[in-house]
Amino acid sequence: MTIQPTDPVQLTADLIRCPSVTPEEGGALVLLQGLLDGAGFACTRVDRGGVANLFARWGGKGHAKSFGFNGHTDVVPVGDLAAWTVDPFGAEVKDGFMYGRGSTDMKSGVAAFAAAAVDFVRETPPEGAIVLTITGDEEGDAVDGTTALLEYMEAEGERMSICIVGEPTCPDEMGDMMKIGRRGSMNAFFTMTGKQGHSAYLHRALNPMPAMARLMDRLSSHVLDEGTEHFDPSTLAVVTIDTGNPATNVVPAQTRATLNIRFNDTHTGASLSDWLRAETAKVDAEFGTRTELVFKISGEAFLTPPGLLSDLVATAVKAETGRTPELSTTGGTSDARFVRHHCPVVEFGLVGKTLHQVDENVEVAQIGQLKAIYTRMLRDYFA
Amino acid sequence: MTIQPTDPVQLTADLIRCPSVTPEEGGALVLLQGLLDGAGFACTRVDRGGVANLFARWGGKGHAKSFGFNGHTDVVPVGDLAAWTVDPFGAEVKDGFMYGRGSTDMKSGVAAFAAAAVDFVRETPPEGAIVLTITGDEEGDAVDGTTALLEYMEAEGERMSICIVGEPTCPDEMGDMMKIGRRGSMNAFFTMTGKQGHSAYLHRALNPMPAMARLMDRLSSHVLDEGTEHFDPSTLAVVTIDTGNPATNVVPAQTRATLNIRFNDTHTGASLSDWLRAETAKVDAEFGTRTELVFKISGEAFLTPPGLLSDLVATAVKAETGRTPELSTTGGTSDARFVRHHCPVVEFGLVGKTLHQVDENVEVAQIGQLKAIYTRMLRDYFA
Ligand SMILES: [Zn+2]
Ligand SMILES: [Zn+2]
Repeated sequence: MTIQPTDPVQLTADLIRCPSVTPEEGGALVLLQGLLDGAGFACTRVDRGGVANLFARWGGKGHAKSFGFNGHTDVVPVGDLAAWTVDPFGAEVKDGFMYGRGSTDMKSGVAAFAAAAVDFVRETPPEGAIVLTITGDEEGDAVDGTTALLEYMEAEGERMSICIVGEPTCPDEMGDMMKIGRRGSMNAFFTMTGKQGHSAYLHRALNPMPAMARLMDRLSSHVLDEGTEHFDPSTLAVVTIDTGNPATNVVPAQTRATLNIRFNDTHTGASLSDWLRAETAKVDAEFGTRTELVFKISGEAFLTPPGLLSDLVATAVKAETGRTPELSTTGGTSDARFVRHHCPVVEFGLVGKTLHQVDENVEVAQIGQLKAIYTRMLRDYFA
Repeated sequence: MTIQPTDPVQLTADLIRCPSVTPEEGGALVLLQGLLDGAGFACTRVDRGGVANLFARWGGKGHAKSFGFNGHTDVVPVGDLAAWTVDPFGAEVKDGFMYGRGSTDMKSGVAAFAAAAVDFVRETPPEGAIVLTITGDEEGDAVDGTTALLEYMEAEGERMSICIVGEPTCPDEMGDMMKIGRRGSMNAFFTMTGKQGHSAYLHRALNPMPAMARLMDRLSSHVLDEGTEHFDPSTLAVVTIDTGNPATNVVPAQTRATLNIRFNDTHTGASLSDWLRAETAKVDAEFGTRTELVFKISGEAFLTPPGLLSDLVATAVKAETGRTPELSTTGGTSDARFVRHHCPVVEFGLVGKTLHQVDENVEVAQIGQLKAIYTRMLRDYFA
C-alpha cells in the first residue's frame, strides 16, 4: 500500500479557513492535532490564559537528538474588510497565489513543517525525536503562547535540540534569507510635568512642551551605534507625543511621549534604560520639568552564531532553490526570542511580502518548496 | 429733593445674581438698561448671532466730545462647582470681599462706570455725550459682541471720542496699572505628514515625529525680540502636540501641533506667519516631511501712545488712590483690540487677582473707589 504524501497546499487552505484571529483557536490546532495524531505523534494541548497551544512529539521524550519546529496559527485581525477583494478566510487561489489572512504569516509555514514531519516519520522513521510547538498566541500578547509551551516542556522533561521557527523570512525570493537572531525591542513611556498657566503669562507657568520637544529631538538625533558584525544599527523611533490640550490660551501641565528602540547586541534593555534616564534628567534640569519614565523591554537582542544549524538550513535551501540564504538579524520580534533560551534557533520560511496586509497572499508553489526544504533539513539532521 | 447716589456695590451684587454665563444674557443687560433708561440714556439693544449687546448714549448723537465706556456682562463658566465654597451667583460678602463669578471680571467694573455715568449726568449734565457699550460676548467668540456694537455705531453715526475699557487691570493694589495697549495674539496649527511604517523597518517609513520635535524645539528656542519701549518681549508657547498613535510598533503618518504667540509691535501677524512658514519649510526640507500650516490671528499688537488719555486716567487714579498707575501692555487680549479702531482707548479697572478662578471675589471697597475714579475722569474730561 502506498501512502499519499501530505499536501501542504491543501493543509494551508484548510488552516486559512479556520478563523483563528488571535486569540481564537478557530479550529486550526484541532485540525493539526488530528493530522499529527494519525501519524503517531503524541499530542498535548497546553492551553493557558484563554489561549490554545499544541505540543506534539514523535519519538522518545527528551531525546538528545530532537528536531524542533515552532510556529503559530493565530492571525492578525482582517482590518478593513471592505478593502479586501477576496474572502479573508476563503483560501481562494488566483493566478498561482492563495489569498487569505495568515496565508503567509504563517499558516503556510505551519502546514509545510507539519506535512514534512508527518511524511518524514512515515517514510523514514528517524533515530531521535521530532517536536512541534505550535501556538495560538504569537500575534497577541505572546504571554501564554510559546512561553507556555516551553515552560510545559521544561516541567515535563521534553526537549528540542535545535529549533526552526517557520515564520516568513524571505524578503523577495524563496530562499534568500534566514534569521539567525533578532534585535531587541523596548518601549519607553515619558510623562513630563510642568505647571499649567495662561499663554499670556508664560513666566508664571512652566510649559513642558519645549522640554519635550528638546528631549525627543535629542533622542531622535542620537546615533546609538553603527551596527555590528551580524546586526544592523540600532534604531530609535518616537512613535507618539500626546498632550490633549484643546485650549490655545493655556499651556498644559503635562505631556506624554512613547519611544520604541530596536537594538542590537551593543546594548541591553538595562543599558538603554540608563541612557534614557540620564538624557531625561539633563533636560529636566535644563527646563525645570519633572519626568516619569516607564520602560517595557519586549526582548533582548540575541544571536545564534553561524555554525551547524545555519549550515543545515543553508544546505537545504541551496539544494531546493539554488539560493544561498543571507544570514540576517533584521525585522521585528518573533517567538524565536523565547525559543533561544531553550536551544539554538534559526528562523526560515517563505516570502512574506504581504503579511498583515489586506489581500494577504502566498505563492502556491512556495508552499511545496518550503515542505521540501524542511524535509531535507530533517533528512540531513538525522542522516 | 435729594437723589440718592447709585450704589455700585449693590449694582455689582445684582449683576452677579444674573447668571450670564457666556453667551447667556441672564438678565444683566436688562437690569442695566432699566437703570440707564431712568437716567435719560437712549438705550438700544444691538443683538446679533444669539448674543445680547447694549448701546446707551446720554447727550447728542455723534457729539465731538463723547466719553465712552466699554465692558462686558458675560462671564466664564463656573468650572468645578464642587470646588466653590460659595454660591457662584450668590454675591455673598465675607470680610469685606464679595464673591461670585464675574465679581472682578467684570461686573464690578460695569457697575462702577454705569453708576458713575448715571450720577454724573444727573448731578452735572455735561456739554457733550457719554456712551456706554456693554456686550454679552467678550468671554465667548467675541465675534458678535463689541464688534457688533462698533459696527452699529459706524452705521448710525454714533461715536466715542475716547474710550475707557473697565476690565480689571491692577495686578496687586487698586490703581497700580492701566493698559495702554496689548500685545497681539495668534495661533498656528501644524499638521505634519510623513509615511506610516513598522518600527522595525524605519527605513521604509518616514516618521514625522523627529521633524516635529526639531521644529518645535527650534521655534521654542527662538528669541522673537527683547521687548520695545512700551512692550514686554514677545512670547511663543507650544501649547499642544498630538499624534494619537496607540501602537508602539508603528510610526505614525501624521502629527499635529499648535502654537500661541503673544507679540509686541516689532511684529505683525503676517510677519510671524512668514517666519513660521520659512522655519517649517526648512525642517520639511531636512526631514522630507510635508507640513500644512493654518494661522489664526486673534489681534494685532496695538498701542495708544501715552498722552492726553493716559494722563486723564493717571490724574484721576492718583487723586483717588495716591498711586501713579504703571502704563502697561501686558496680559491677554480684551475688547480694546476692537475699540482701538474706533478711537483712542485705555483700559483701567480694579484688582483682578481671582478672575476666571474658583471663588472669584472683589474687594468691596474697590468698587466704590472705582466709581469715584471714573467719576473724576468724567469731571476732568468735561471740565
Ligand atoms: Zn508570524
Ligand atoms: Zn473680562
